[in-house]
Amino acid sequence: MRKINFNAGPSAIPLPALELAQKEMLDFEGTGMSIMEHSHRGKDYMRVHAEAKALLIELMEVPATHEVLFMQGGASMQFALVPLNFLAAGRRADYVVTGTWGKKALEEARRVGEARAAWQQTDVQGRYVRVPKQAEVSFDERACYVHTTSNNTLFGSQYWQFLDTGKLWQVCDMSSDILSRKVEVSKFGLIYAGAQKNLGPSGLVVVLVHKEFLKAASEHIPLIFRYATFAEHDSLLNTPSTFGVYMLRNCLRWLKAEGGVSGMALRNEKKAKALYAVLDELPEFYIAPVEKESRSHMNVVFHLANAALDEAFVKAAAAEQMAGVKGHRSTGGMRASIYNATSQQDVETLVDFMRRFARQHG
Amino acid sequence: MRKINFNAGPSAIPLPALELAQKEMLDFEGTGMSIMEHSHRGKDYMRVHAEAKALLIELMEVPATHEVLFMQGGASMQFALVPLNFLAAGRRADYVVTGTWGKKALEEARRVGEARAAWQQTDVQGRYVRVPKQAEVSFDERACYVHTTSNNTLFGSQYWQFLDTGKLWQVCDMSSDILSRKVEVSKFGLIYAGAQKNLGPSGLVVVLVHKEFLKAASEHIPLIFRYATFAEHDSLLNTPSTFGVYMLRNCLRWLKAEGGVSGMALRNEKKAKALYAVLDELPEFYIAPVEKESRSHMNVVFHLANAALDEAFVKAAAAEQMAGVKGHRSTGGMRASIYNATSQQDVETLVDFMRRFARQHG
Repeated sequence: MRKINFNAGPSAIPLPALELAQKEMLDFEGTGMSIMEHSHRGKDYMRVHAEAKALLIELMEVPATHEVLFMQGGASMQFALVPLNFLAAGRRADYVVTGTWGKKALEEARRVGEARAAWQQTDVQGRYVRVPKQAEVSFDERACYVHTTSNNTLFGSQYWQFLDTGKLWQVCDMSSDILSRKVEVSKFGLIYAGAQKNLGPSGLVVVLVHKEFLKAASEHIPLIFRYATFAEHDSLLNTPSTFGVYMLRNCLRWLKAEGGVSGMALRNEKKAKALYAVLDELPEFYIAPVEKESRSHMNVVFHLANAALDEAFVKAAAAEQMAGVKGHRSTGGMRASIYNATSQQDVETLVDFMRRFARQHG
Repeated sequence: MRKINFNAGPSAIPLPALELAQKEMLDFEGTGMSIMEHSHRGKDYMRVHAEAKALLIELMEVPATHEVLFMQGGASMQFALVPLNFLAAGRRADYVVTGTWGKKALEEARRVGEARAAWQQTDVQGRYVRVPKQAEVSFDERACYVHTTSNNTLFGSQYWQFLDTGKLWQVCDMSSDILSRKVEVSKFGLIYAGAQKNLGPSGLVVVLVHKEFLKAASEHIPLIFRYATFAEHDSLLNTPSTFGVYMLRNCLRWLKAEGGVSGMALRNEKKAKALYAVLDELPEFYIAPVEKESRSHMNVVFHLANAALDEAFVKAAAAEQMAGVKGHRSTGGMRASIYNATSQQDVETLVDFMRRFARQHG
């Protein structure tokens, strides 16, 4: 029996995407071998590669100004590749730090060159509980780029109004909310996303990069570090994570059939509303630390007012076939990650459970 | 129906490894979710991670001096990471260039620091047809390391006696022959291998690195580039390719059941002998460019004396359910890649076909 999966990443994958992978595991579309056994330069894999890319372009409405790249190494690899490519010597990059991963991105940039936190704010307990408003942030007008994180997986905040970086290129880590809502790709110099939340399995990274921004990239770094290399070779300079791209294709087919990005956005809003509603209804039992205007639709973070009940909560949820509700080890508390693959019904099951649990232990 | 797969990589995967993945695709060991949907920090994935690592240590007899790392980005990423970690400023690295990938590794190192070809030799047609003997190579005694390629996928040569690099650390790309024969891991400072030939699907890279060598690594590069980071965090600083590690586990279970590395070595020798025998028997029809002492047991490279028959050969092989016999686009001709997952019977089918084809067209 399949569990209800609230894991933060790797996380739930749409069942039809997995079922197709299962069906085709030994024989991909009558070719007599698994997609994993196909050459990355053969026509069968190339078809998958092209379909995944075309679906991504269609679903995200990627303009012709942007390249779509398939890379590896997770968002953490992007933390290093972005400054290596774009942080020129003698110049600076601005980082808007709204959570743990943004902070890590800044720290990694500082191992490459000069970078500063253009904005960084935590509450008295050291938690990141909001994203900034436009008026709160000022950028270095000579910055090579501004780095932002669209959704903070760990603390559960999300931009509902992206920052306007004016003439500066905006580089955005969208690992945990890509394809969950409409985004104007044209406003970003570079978008990157590890696949293991809304796109498929870990090990694959999707990058969208503006062709003009690419022209500013360093040519004095190893070939394999250059976004330009991936753009020139259609992400096939070397062997990509072929199974990762295949699973991405399967997930995007499902997403398209489910109403595309606008369908997902509607569903995600409903799911998040239902969960935050129970938190707001029971503030003496459940505490939602994130400011309302910054609440994430992907990662709903909360604590039990009585932390002594934490273990019982996780156990009782598990007994009702719900996995992954425990918060990140660095924050404690609870977190329900409700990415695209999590259904309205999954969330209602959790909401119902949370109400019952509060009644029983309140 | 499953094809006989002679692809050079990604390549054949043992059927039981795929069948297990198929069976467990929706529900890994009764956990109610795919292994791809499990958190990389949860006990279920951790069990897989630990088993894959333990099997690798057991099968390769990895000594306690060496760390086992799971990385991403293919061998091509290692081409850059090796010099970034170990090529100190003002010093040099030696590369023994025995094929296209070794050459690419050298070129990438030169984008990082100073590196030279300690040996490099092609025939009059520009083909790499042999590996050097010890007496032919002299190393820079101040080199940070010596880089070698144990098996050359593209040209089909292989070391049967590894070079002795004395006090210098030897870094070896074993992507295309890891686990195909016994190797004294203790003699290497670092071994790396992209998984898509003998270990599983593309996207995963296995690294074995000597702990003493690690101490010489740079601490002035991004965290995600450092082998030390992966060693310290058991390859879990960030999310690994969890499905890749799972498939590695499945492949290693199969390999162990099939007699381990010594079982594979015996089988691989038999397979290679059978194929080279037909090439040697029919030298007027088939041309094997690689010198006999350097012949690879993994990639059997040959040409038809009459290149006009190339297309007919590939077509006729395909008609008998054999895929992947076409040579690399840069070399032309034919190549049968006969990694661990290729059976004796698969090779006999090819040998039989090659005899018939020569009779019919000779």
